[in-house]
Amino acid sequence: MAPVDIALVHYPVLNKNKDIIGSAITNLDIHDIARAGRTFGIRSFYIVTPYHDQQQMAEEIVGHWRSGYGASYNEDRKEALAIVRICDSLQTLYAQTAAEREKTNILVTSAQSVIGVKTWPYPMVREKIKQKECFLILFGTAWGLADEVFAGVDGMLPPIQGDGDYNHLAVRSAVSIVLDRLLSGCG
Amino acid sequence: MAPVDIALVHYPVLNKNKDIIGSAITNLDIHDIARAGRTFGIRSFYIVTPYHDQQQMAEEIVGHWRSGYGASYNEDRKEALAIVRICDSLQTLYAQTAAEREKTNILVTSAQSVIGVKTWPYPMVREKIKQKECFLILFGTAWGLADEVFAGVDGMLPPIQGDGDYNHLAVRSAVSIVLDRLLSGCG
Repeated sequence: MAPVDIALVHYPVLNKNKDIIGSAITNLDIHDIARAGRTFGIRSFYIVTPYHDQQQMAEEIVGHWRSGYGASYNEDRKEALAIVRICDSLQTLYAQTAAEREKTNILVTSAQSVIGVKTWPYPMVREKIKQKECFLILFGTAWGLADEVFAGVDGMLPPIQGDGDYNHLAVRSAVSIVLDRLLSGCG
Repeated sequence: MAPVDIALVHYPVLNKNKDIIGSAITNLDIHDIARAGRTFGIRSFYIVTPYHDQQQMAEEIVGHWRSGYGASYNEDRKEALAIVRICDSLQTLYAQTAAEREKTNILVTSAQSVIGVKTWPYPMVREKIKQKECFLILFGTAWGLADEVFAGVDGMLPPIQGDGDYNHLAVRSAVSIVLDRLLSGCG
């Protein structure tokens, strides 16, 4: 198992007008990201939301596949969803990480470079993971993580660049690509 | 623009019991794959389904974002969905590709290696794309492409390997990773 945790953050994130909001949980985010996380051998996939009804919905979805009918229908999915953990805030997540893990580098992701935040190139992070350094990587939903999140972290991964200046990837795609870059075998 | 087309195949694919079926179109497949395709600068993203009602549904989804309300609400999404084309069969797709494109290498993807199908390593395909060779890359839905699809192609891309033998990625994740491996900038 790789010494890597990831978190999908639903608050604080931005809406289209750059206001700070809390976003709704998307069922397919949970499934796709858990499957990618399990494929690349990460430890935990945290879903961060402050809303009780959203936490409960996430618990129900995960429960269905972990121990409900879904668990016998599709064992591969059960195995993927075993890595999911639900968390009420980044503060709680940081406290939990400090309590449970060894010293952890916290990195954010963004579709754009952010002035004042140190960039950690993928090959460097990949090498540190091989050396057993711990990482927690944050992904934003909606229009991306709010500025305040960038202040409390160790650095950021470079934005994923494609062909030109269009980089409006789904967060499901971004997580998959980041995990592949950091953790893939030689496939 | 890269000389690459991709196709998301809904028939012929396998179900959980390895029977040949036609699968249903998933809204988020269209969005996520179009966004990844546009990000990495491919030419077309074909959705292959023989069912008229499914073709119509795909047309309606794409139409909403290309020229309906969605087009003014989210211009980035409009741009992504501009690369989507709907096609009734692989035979039609191959005929269309032969008519419209230069000589094209057709590659399949699979979560497992397939005996008798030549593997084209990612760095080799990446280099050929740089040399302007054309590619059409097929992705299966449900439990993967039916065997018959493998017979009519030039080769396959290696399965995406993560940490161990678990590789049950969502097709949305697999497409994102494959395009990143073949077409990413230096991000």
